[in-house]
Amino acid sequence: MDTSKRFEKGNGGCPSIQCETNQDVLCQSCASGVVTAAHRVAQRAAEPCLFGKGGTCCRNCNMGPCQIIEGVDQMIGVCGADAATVAARNFARIVAGGSSAHMDHGRGMALAFLATARGETPYEIKDAAKLRATAQRLGIDPADKATTDLAIEVGTLLVNQFGQQEGGLALMKRAPKARQEVWAKLGVAPRGIDREVVELMHRTHMGVDQDAANLLFQAARCALADGWGASMIATELSDVMFGTPVPIRTKVNIGVLKEDEVNVTVHGHEPVVAEALAMAANDPEIVAEAKKVGAKGVNLAGVCCTGNEILMRRGLPIAGSFVQQEVVLATGAVEAMVVDVQCIMQGVSPAAGQFHTRLVTTSEKAKIPGARHIAFDEHRALDSAKEILRQAIAAYPERGKHYIPVHQMDVVAGFSHETITYMLGGRFRGSYKPLNDNIANGRIRGVAAIVGCDNYRVLEEVHIELAKELIANDVLVLVTGCAATGMGRAGLLTPEALSMAGDGLKEVLEAVGCPPVLHMGSCVDNSRILIAATEMVLTGGLGNDISDLPAVGCAPQWMSEKAVAIGQYFVSSGASVIFGPSFPTTGSKVVTDYCFREMENLYGAHWDVAQTSNEFANKMLDHINAKRKALGLDKKKERVLFDMAMRRELQTGLQDVGCHGPGA
Amino acid sequence: MDTSKRFEKGNGGCPSIQCETNQDVLCQSCASGVVTAAHRVAQRAAEPCLFGKGGTCCRNCNMGPCQIIEGVDQMIGVCGADAATVAARNFARIVAGGSSAHMDHGRGMALAFLATARGETPYEIKDAAKLRATAQRLGIDPADKATTDLAIEVGTLLVNQFGQQEGGLALMKRAPKARQEVWAKLGVAPRGIDREVVELMHRTHMGVDQDAANLLFQAARCALADGWGASMIATELSDVMFGTPVPIRTKVNIGVLKEDEVNVTVHGHEPVVAEALAMAANDPEIVAEAKKVGAKGVNLAGVCCTGNEILMRRGLPIAGSFVQQEVVLATGAVEAMVVDVQCIMQGVSPAAGQFHTRLVTTSEKAKIPGARHIAFDEHRALDSAKEILRQAIAAYPERGKHYIPVHQMDVVAGFSHETITYMLGGRFRGSYKPLNDNIANGRIRGVAAIVGCDNYRVLEEVHIELAKELIANDVLVLVTGCAATGMGRAGLLTPEALSMAGDGLKEVLEAVGCPPVLHMGSCVDNSRILIAATEMVLTGGLGNDISDLPAVGCAPQWMSEKAVAIGQYFVSSGASVIFGPSFPTTGSKVVTDYCFREMENLYGAHWDVAQTSNEFANKMLDHINAKRKALGLDKKKERVLFDMAMRRELQTGLQDVGCHGPGA
Repeated sequence: MDTSKRFEKGNGGCPSIQCETNQDVLCQSCASGVVTAAHRVAQRAAEPCLFGKGGTCCRNCNMGPCQIIEGVDQMIGVCGADAATVAARNFARIVAGGSSAHMDHGRGMALAFLATARGETPYEIKDAAKLRATAQRLGIDPADKATTDLAIEVGTLLVNQFGQQEGGLALMKRAPKARQEVWAKLGVAPRGIDREVVELMHRTHMGVDQDAANLLFQAARCALADGWGASMIATELSDVMFGTPVPIRTKVNIGVLKEDEVNVTVHGHEPVVAEALAMAANDPEIVAEAKKVGAKGVNLAGVCCTGNEILMRRGLPIAGSFVQQEVVLATGAVEAMVVDVQCIMQGVSPAAGQFHTRLVTTSEKAKIPGARHIAFDEHRALDSAKEILRQAIAAYPERGKHYIPVHQMDVVAGFSHETITYMLGGRFRGSYKPLNDNIANGRIRGVAAIVGCDNYRVLEEVHIELAKELIANDVLVLVTGCAATGMGRAGLLTPEALSMAGDGLKEVLEAVGCPPVLHMGSCVDNSRILIAATEMVLTGGLGNDISDLPAVGCAPQWMSEKAVAIGQYFVSSGASVIFGPSFPTTGSKVVTDYCFREMENLYGAHWDVAQTSNEFANKMLDHINAKRKALGLDKKKERVLFDMAMRRELQTGLQDVGCHGPGA
Repeated sequence: MDTSKRFEKGNGGCPSIQCETNQDVLCQSCASGVVTAAHRVAQRAAEPCLFGKGGTCCRNCNMGPCQIIEGVDQMIGVCGADAATVAARNFARIVAGGSSAHMDHGRGMALAFLATARGETPYEIKDAAKLRATAQRLGIDPADKATTDLAIEVGTLLVNQFGQQEGGLALMKRAPKARQEVWAKLGVAPRGIDREVVELMHRTHMGVDQDAANLLFQAARCALADGWGASMIATELSDVMFGTPVPIRTKVNIGVLKEDEVNVTVHGHEPVVAEALAMAANDPEIVAEAKKVGAKGVNLAGVCCTGNEILMRRGLPIAGSFVQQEVVLATGAVEAMVVDVQCIMQGVSPAAGQFHTRLVTTSEKAKIPGARHIAFDEHRALDSAKEILRQAIAAYPERGKHYIPVHQMDVVAGFSHETITYMLGGRFRGSYKPLNDNIANGRIRGVAAIVGCDNYRVLEEVHIELAKELIANDVLVLVTGCAATGMGRAGLLTPEALSMAGDGLKEVLEAVGCPPVLHMGSCVDNSRILIAATEMVLTGGLGNDISDLPAVGCAPQWMSEKAVAIGQYFVSSGASVIFGPSFPTTGSKVVTDYCFREMENLYGAHWDVAQTSNEFANKMLDHINAKRKALGLDKKKERVLFDMAMRRELQTGLQDVGCHGPGA
């Protein structure tokens, strides 16, 4: 990769991290002492090791590490393990790591939910209707039950799913029948949640499973325990407890920080801490304390997926995505960055240390040298939250040289599965039928999910360029996670962005009143996409299984192990997934062929890889067209091919959009 | 490492793998096509990567891999993770891998036990007395309960420990009170078994726990869930179901293969398959079938820890340890190698393929390309076993050019905790008091455990040399796993080996009738050492906690991740552990200092590293002497220092001992 571009002369030596706002902030004098990941990428003395990158460095025993080259006898493992075994093992351990992250997230939510149901926390059951619907899906009759009793019953059942040793997962029964049959046939239906990680870790131990296909079956089982287990539990219970998202207008990008308020950024993944902070931020006591130090109040803004959680439910703004976490601090205008778990770079600690910024860790699972640790206890959530906010308020008078960029962009978010149902049909006739019908009649070509992280190793804003090309080709785009934040910065999450959509998509969405890119939540909320896909199947007219749908997913800048777990549960659920810029098994043709081709035979879906937005768009549109053809929906629909002139036109066609923001 | 020694001219070009028997077999013409791990080590074009070896290669996200050098700014992770974070994470994931292996083993045993209790398998409850004792320890009153009812109750409770989400582990209450207080104070007492692996995998995910000490606390909790949870459950239930080991005489080394019988080697770790094979091998139907093809019967011999399981309980011979697995096949005299899980090198498949040998995989968790898969179902254990044996019988007439070496050695094994209690005191006055008294009066200096794998990367027979030096210095040696097999080959597991012991140790053990080196079982049976140590504390006179005992453990040739998990649960339990030839965190001084020094402050025990047997002996004897001094037991006891002359004298002092075997 040519990282020299990051510090081109045209930039004035300021590193560019995808979005112009970042470069703007990092060029200010207040940011001069901040070392970001962009600097570290450029400064690293060594490029990433290709054995590690391609999945063929085996470190699973102390006879190694063994670096393997497929087909070269002198480069086989000391134990005899070949590239296929090693690449499959490493892929499986990535899935185990990513799944575990969601499992702990789901477990935390389930335990907090149960405590709430028992009246032990200041949270409440905000969506009793969803609680009843969830109970019914779990085989619990909600009739005549008080909300708290029902919540205790649902919470207990779902907590038990984590430790369950045998049987199947309750929420998998939501999947299309045909899909459940595929899982049963392949033997990949999880028996419990935690058990599948332990078995995957065992099977990847030295001298256990040495059949790549067999290892990848267990990787599928583990990933399914994430998607249809832990992640779905997290999403469903978060909705019941904190409210199911409905469309809401808010703002994203660093410009959401405020000059005259105490800026508190919440970073990480779980909603529990952030929800408590949101409750406490409006507490008269806290507001009064903020005023005492000369601020108008507390401005809570999200970073990464914690940001998505409170954006979806409370309409709170997002200051930045994963690649912006240090840039947000580099403004010098953040009084506190409060973190929970996942995707928090260790670099935020020295970056915060350049300023008055308090870096506060809240989870016993995640401490960082240099941070202040305030253990968050959900049982005394409000008190914990106030204690944290007081740290920020105390810092406000210390704010020194700082710079808040103008860049911010309106977004409409909050597209839960329930909301989509409602928007498509209204409360009493809520249904996916209008969506399916418009796919069948060709106004909508298909559905694409663009999910996952943003990544310092990627220079192009792939998410944005890809989304533009897809909607121009009448593909409805669903987004989650940091990909969603990037699209938000570019103005794609507004109904106004329909001007960039193809005529068919525009016609449908204008009637419904939706943007062409629907923000469905945090990365754990990819489970919403599983449910949406299932709903499309159940509504009828688009085949019998998820694998029949003209739909495809991608993660063009995947960074975290969770992305691989998510991809694996999507493919195993029948939805093909394209990763970029790299795929973690490329050191073994055998394993890569399995993922890219053999999985299609087994699951009706496959993995793939692409680099540029154009390559992604080509593969995704081809996939959607092929599925349409298989469904007999291949009436002539011309593909809109993008050239540079069109790209330029699109840019000018949507003023005030893009990272330059409305003020530029 | 100088691997050229393996193919020195003096060897006639035959690779040497520690023991002379191996070289003997590999020099025969029948072995000429076999490629062993020794060949692969020598042929590898690249030495092990030092970043990977020292724990500072981070592959936990797709911005990497990042190779880290402690203290070098240009070699920090893209996310800002430093060497300490990365080394702690990698160490933690090794513990997660190793613990998971034991957890699946324990889970498998618990589920098989429960099925047996319910009468669904052909196994039985062989040790009802141990069942009752175990029940009592678990807080279940065994009075007036039928054995099967009690077994169902015990089995259900123990199966539930795996999925338990909150509370503590039932068997941890066996530990000394002072130790339980240490765990409570440090917050490392496991809440369940599987959950601790998932949390460890989560915390090692990108951007979660970035405080090395905090990560290593969870690594301790996960390891304790292995040692006092899964491994102890595996050992206790295996004893109840298959019989608690008592001293038993048998043989080890490749010479146990037989010319005129169908040789079936069982390789891996779990006793369930091997026990069924042992039952079936004597079945008249099978014996008749063997005779039909011209053999006298079926000769079952172990490899690796499955070997230790059936050696301990049935007195079946062991053909080889981990480093001998391909050499055993290279004899050309093995009709079938039946494997379950763990430490089975992929290289056995091409090695078996050189001959008529059937390689049979039996676990759904472990398949190998080129092997025949016969799924073992404990519910129809005997039928499965017969099906497997028939494969071997069918192969017997195909046995071609082969060579069975003369090398074999008598061993006495079977030293369970219960047996030691009995031997020390007899059935009615069984107690560790004689051991404690003799430690207090100085006849026995202390106790050392030599455990773990053997490793192709180690040329010296460290286990054997070290054990000789320790017993000469009046240290009682406990062994498990492949270390035990190596000692067996060298004749150290016989009462005759007392001739090599110091006068004090000899005096005590001659009275009791024990060898100076006690074989306590497979690597999962290291839990027996935890119990023995606890018993020493409870017996009194040697302090209040395991950390007070003049005892120390080591794994001089650690290979598998399980060894690290075991080491971590020993150190966290108060027993210091020395690893060799390397330690997996040496790329970070911070983490290595934590393990080698800070853990002493926290747990009263620490990790250490050594290379040569002499260095091990020095460190272990110093440690034992220091503990004696702290207990006020430091009456002058001269250390016997070994020089080469003494080593030579010891060799000649024990004829018929050593790998050359009785025939040499």
